[in-house]
Amino acid sequence: MRRLTLALDAMGGDFGPAVTVPAALQALVSYPQLELLLVGNPAAIHSLLVKTDSVLLERLTVIPAESVITSDAKPSQAIRASRGTSMRVALELIRDGRAQACVSAGNTGALMGLAKLVLKPLDGIERPALMVVLPHKKQGKTVVLDLGANVACDGAMLAQFAVMGSVMAEHIVGVTNPRVALLNIGEEETKGLDPIQHAAVLLRDVQSINYIGYLEANELLTGKTDVLVCDGFVGNVTLKTMEGVIRVFLSLLKSSGESGRQGWLMQWVKRWMKRRLMRQFGQLNPDQYNGACLIGLRGTVIKSHGAANQRAFTAAIEQAMQAVERQIPERIAARLDAVLPKSD
Amino acid sequence: MRRLTLALDAMGGDFGPAVTVPAALQALVSYPQLELLLVGNPAAIHSLLVKTDSVLLERLTVIPAESVITSDAKPSQAIRASRGTSMRVALELIRDGRAQACVSAGNTGALMGLAKLVLKPLDGIERPALMVVLPHKKQGKTVVLDLGANVACDGAMLAQFAVMGSVMAEHIVGVTNPRVALLNIGEEETKGLDPIQHAAVLLRDVQSINYIGYLEANELLTGKTDVLVCDGFVGNVTLKTMEGVIRVFLSLLKSSGESGRQGWLMQWVKRWMKRRLMRQFGQLNPDQYNGACLIGLRGTVIKSHGAANQRAFTAAIEQAMQAVERQIPERIAARLDAVLPKSD
Repeated sequence: MRRLTLALDAMGGDFGPAVTVPAALQALVSYPQLELLLVGNPAAIHSLLVKTDSVLLERLTVIPAESVITSDAKPSQAIRASRGTSMRVALELIRDGRAQACVSAGNTGALMGLAKLVLKPLDGIERPALMVVLPHKKQGKTVVLDLGANVACDGAMLAQFAVMGSVMAEHIVGVTNPRVALLNIGEEETKGLDPIQHAAVLLRDVQSINYIGYLEANELLTGKTDVLVCDGFVGNVTLKTMEGVIRVFLSLLKSSGESGRQGWLMQWVKRWMKRRLMRQFGQLNPDQYNGACLIGLRGTVIKSHGAANQRAFTAAIEQAMQAVERQIPERIAARLDAVLPKSD
Repeated sequence: MRRLTLALDAMGGDFGPAVTVPAALQALVSYPQLELLLVGNPAAIHSLLVKTDSVLLERLTVIPAESVITSDAKPSQAIRASRGTSMRVALELIRDGRAQACVSAGNTGALMGLAKLVLKPLDGIERPALMVVLPHKKQGKTVVLDLGANVACDGAMLAQFAVMGSVMAEHIVGVTNPRVALLNIGEEETKGLDPIQHAAVLLRDVQSINYIGYLEANELLTGKTDVLVCDGFVGNVTLKTMEGVIRVFLSLLKSSGESGRQGWLMQWVKRWMKRRLMRQFGQLNPDQYNGACLIGLRGTVIKSHGAANQRAFTAAIEQAMQAVERQIPERIAARLDAVLPKSD
């Protein structure tokens, strides 16, 4: 069995070690090939390990880090003062070859900036992209990127995202010859911004990418594509719009002090509806889905939701394992090398 | 009682005169001050007026137009070949002072392009913007613009949209000192694209605008602002994302052949839930809300949804009446004149 070592930013997220340490232990129990480096305040981490089986502890190492980047810190300032923080040390463990991937629930902007700084982009990639896998109503999944790593993108960058997304859809979602679309405000060729039109021209020439054209944002959940590519500004707005609408819908399903016979029925109806929604679209609920993947770097970085609970943080660890096992960075590098001219 | 004359593109939309003519008659019955110019194929229109009361017909004039811009036509081509189309003739009636506003359910891109061409922008406005009023969960409403009239916008344009949106929130929604926010991917000052940051600088200096800063897309329906400003690409993506998510949710509520006692209960639950959603957010359903307003021109243009039924098209007519009665173009012009330096 091949060993697999991940670095965890134990201090990141709203709950820090209280969530990350139990999640780490849960993952160690489930996956005997897993080895974890917990980066953070040793006292805080050790206090949560007192009752842990010593056999499990053999696969767990605490790496001391003096400080933490808070979730409300300004990314640029946080990055300048990042030396010795749990997030940065965790990323440096990948750079130094001690870990194969890293998981953090910390400050998103700082994580993206630091990851770019500490781990270098793959050859052929100008900038890494943040990616999520969304469920769609045909029971499949759609890879969506970029979600905010790059506010402005040129056509070459969008084409690189398309290649990376295609590799992810093939090796993470398991789709053969995945369809790739560019997010635009209409389906005609002349629609939208210049970078999108330029990316379309580039992608039409790439034989190994199943480019299907433009899709509009109302097709996000309809399963018309396996990969949807956009710049980070638009991706962020799209995902947050979706989150906002879903939160409003779920808030309608909260019980609101109904009483008596009819009240009981109302509560039952709301619970039923909520279960139904959760079953099909639970992963769209920002409290439930977890693990955006920063791809395009020499090493895998998983961004867990800051509010992740133990189960959700374990899911992010599993996502990191999957990315390592399926050799995502290597496959992206190989595909890029084969298909895309370097952008100028 | 002051006369109010609107031009209707009778041929636009998925159903053409079959919807627009009955909607026009309904509006004439409801509003005795209203006079309508129905632009389109005279035979098609007259055939729907056979049984109409002659008193009503005194306030209805059929303006012949030879051709129609189809809803799937490419806007640029449609505009080049637009002479004599019902949409263009309807807009020319405003330009020539025969109508005060125009309503069309036709091709959105062509309508925006033609409106800019035929009606000129107000002084101080570089480009008109497409605006909708969305309900939010605190029972109020938020004015959102631009929704696709301008794919790329500089800071001055965004600031102009903010001023126009503020006038709309005050005079259409009825909010005193409306809060105005810029849509961005974070709330810190340094976030986002240059035009947004530039617009923020401009808006902070405008005393008469209650500028509250950046808002993220997950706040779209939470009522934190009365006006939300973005460029047309982002606005279009935001609105379509919302539509897509809502359609998926509503599709979960469709009855799916349940039978027997439990099936009956399921159907009842779904119907109850749907009514509940519709009551609070019916206007978010793309089949229900109607009438995006193209503002910033010398004259008011209302874009009805192409799939609008009679009731929805009547609502679009009412929106046009409201814009004329509240002198929206004049108020926008006055406000712009008072607050904004002309952009260079």
